[in-house]
Amino acid sequence: MRYGIIGSGAIGGYYGGKLVRAGQEVHFLFRSDYDYVKKNGLQIDSCDGSFHLDSVNAYNDTADMPQCDVVLVCLKSVNNDKLKTMLPPLLHERTLVILIQNGIGVEADVQQMFPEVQLAAGLAFICSAKTEPGRVNHQCYGSINLANYSCRDESLFEAVIAEFREAGIETGQVEYHEARWKKAVWNMPFNGMTVALHAQTDELLKHPDTRKLIREQMMEVVGAAQHLGVKNLDEQFVEKMIRMTDEMTPYSPSMRLDYDFHRRMEIYYLYTRPIELAREAGFQMPKLEMLEAELKFLEKNL
Amino acid sequence: MRYGIIGSGAIGGYYGGKLVRAGQEVHFLFRSDYDYVKKNGLQIDSCDGSFHLDSVNAYNDTADMPQCDVVLVCLKSVNNDKLKTMLPPLLHERTLVILIQNGIGVEADVQQMFPEVQLAAGLAFICSAKTEPGRVNHQCYGSINLANYSCRDESLFEAVIAEFREAGIETGQVEYHEARWKKAVWNMPFNGMTVALHAQTDELLKHPDTRKLIREQMMEVVGAAQHLGVKNLDEQFVEKMIRMTDEMTPYSPSMRLDYDFHRRMEIYYLYTRPIELAREAGFQMPKLEMLEAELKFLEKNL
Repeated sequence: MRYGIIGSGAIGGYYGGKLVRAGQEVHFLFRSDYDYVKKNGLQIDSCDGSFHLDSVNAYNDTADMPQCDVVLVCLKSVNNDKLKTMLPPLLHERTLVILIQNGIGVEADVQQMFPEVQLAAGLAFICSAKTEPGRVNHQCYGSINLANYSCRDESLFEAVIAEFREAGIETGQVEYHEARWKKAVWNMPFNGMTVALHAQTDELLKHPDTRKLIREQMMEVVGAAQHLGVKNLDEQFVEKMIRMTDEMTPYSPSMRLDYDFHRRMEIYYLYTRPIELAREAGFQMPKLEMLEAELKFLEKNL
Repeated sequence: MRYGIIGSGAIGGYYGGKLVRAGQEVHFLFRSDYDYVKKNGLQIDSCDGSFHLDSVNAYNDTADMPQCDVVLVCLKSVNNDKLKTMLPPLLHERTLVILIQNGIGVEADVQQMFPEVQLAAGLAFICSAKTEPGRVNHQCYGSINLANYSCRDESLFEAVIAEFREAGIETGQVEYHEARWKKAVWNMPFNGMTVALHAQTDELLKHPDTRKLIREQMMEVVGAAQHLGVKNLDEQFVEKMIRMTDEMTPYSPSMRLDYDFHRRMEIYYLYTRPIELAREAGFQMPKLEMLEAELKFLEKNL
């Protein structure tokens, strides 16, 4: 199968690079790194073994890219409005587009732009960063869960999972709503609170008042998910997330990095949209609403 | 009547100074300014006319002070535990103690320390600051509302109001619960939010998301007050507070100043206590609870 990568940074560069190394045909869209990669290739520094791709199918415009069977969208969701013009050159009738993005509602919005396209969600569990042009630094983890959103062709979806696994990517198959909302249980409190209080995960959990607040915010996400009919999400999952974070290395989530580097934050899909969906279902998330307002205020100064 | 002032800073220095100028006998407790005032007197720079008191009854220990008929407590409420040892030398059987302090619950706690003492609340509407030793800078406003909390001697309470007025202090008489909770409608959102988002009142009201949040937090205070049986407090009062703040000069409330100058914040009486009282009455204040947690987290770094 032919792969296209939209957004070849820390995530897209890593997964795309693994697929290339396994012998797949992969076409990468770059922005600022285009000239560098065209000339020097792509370097993946990885805890699982580093490697270099000497020649990369690199593009700086999707209009020049071929149609692909599978497209991985690894852009930040603040740029999703651009998909309307970026995606069409890569699509044929059976293309599967996998959104490896944060938040709730990205699939629904992309589906509205392209009603016929087959969509899946990709939930990456990975610590990686783009440290310099053409160089991805993969620090740890690296697994991905794929969830079918609107892929009518089951065999295509399963073939992608098989090829990911052949490329050495630990790949799980999960239920869409459950997976997105489970990730939101961690993402909604920690992404925003690390920005609002300018603190890392460990500091927030060490102080009893913010530890309690984080738990209450997680319970708001669980309550919203339950109201929306999502299964397998309860207080036990919240306790599991707290314990997991206690054991993690102190961590600054992506929103905190965006804020610190004066980049736009993914407030819409991480907060506004899930809060709206919950409210429409008759459930309020007051503490996460307040966090959303604080983040929107803080973003005005970026 | 003989007056005692506990905490002779921006508030105590101003009101005490006005009483002295009107011919009352006033005894002031100072801390760091004691030596300076003993030698140089007290200067009141005021928008209503500046004046200097050459000789001031100044003390640095309440043990040296005489019993007083009226005691104005103008300490920050974070120091109220010290009243247990500071107050007794000033008290006789009929002393009226007026707490000119922020928050909800200060009178109840002081009453518990001194079950027999007659108490009143003082709600000051004043912009003043202590700019240097022995010098109070009174910028604008200056009125005070007095509310009877446990003064059995109505004539004493009325005599105090009369003497305040004779001293040129605009003095109102108000109902205790209504006055404290009305002040909380403004105090709870703005004191904490100016700290949490490091912004002044005008910036918070200019941004639509924080304007909405401030209004919602004010409505939480109104809801709590209504649950506790407080009268004359509703959405119209919230709109009035928003409009009043729109018209104010951009302002940093006392908690913001405390935070900026690395002093302890009055979190307990401004947040913890009213939130507890509301919860006991079956009413939740989730957004102000979250603000309380954020402030307690921020205070740990002071």
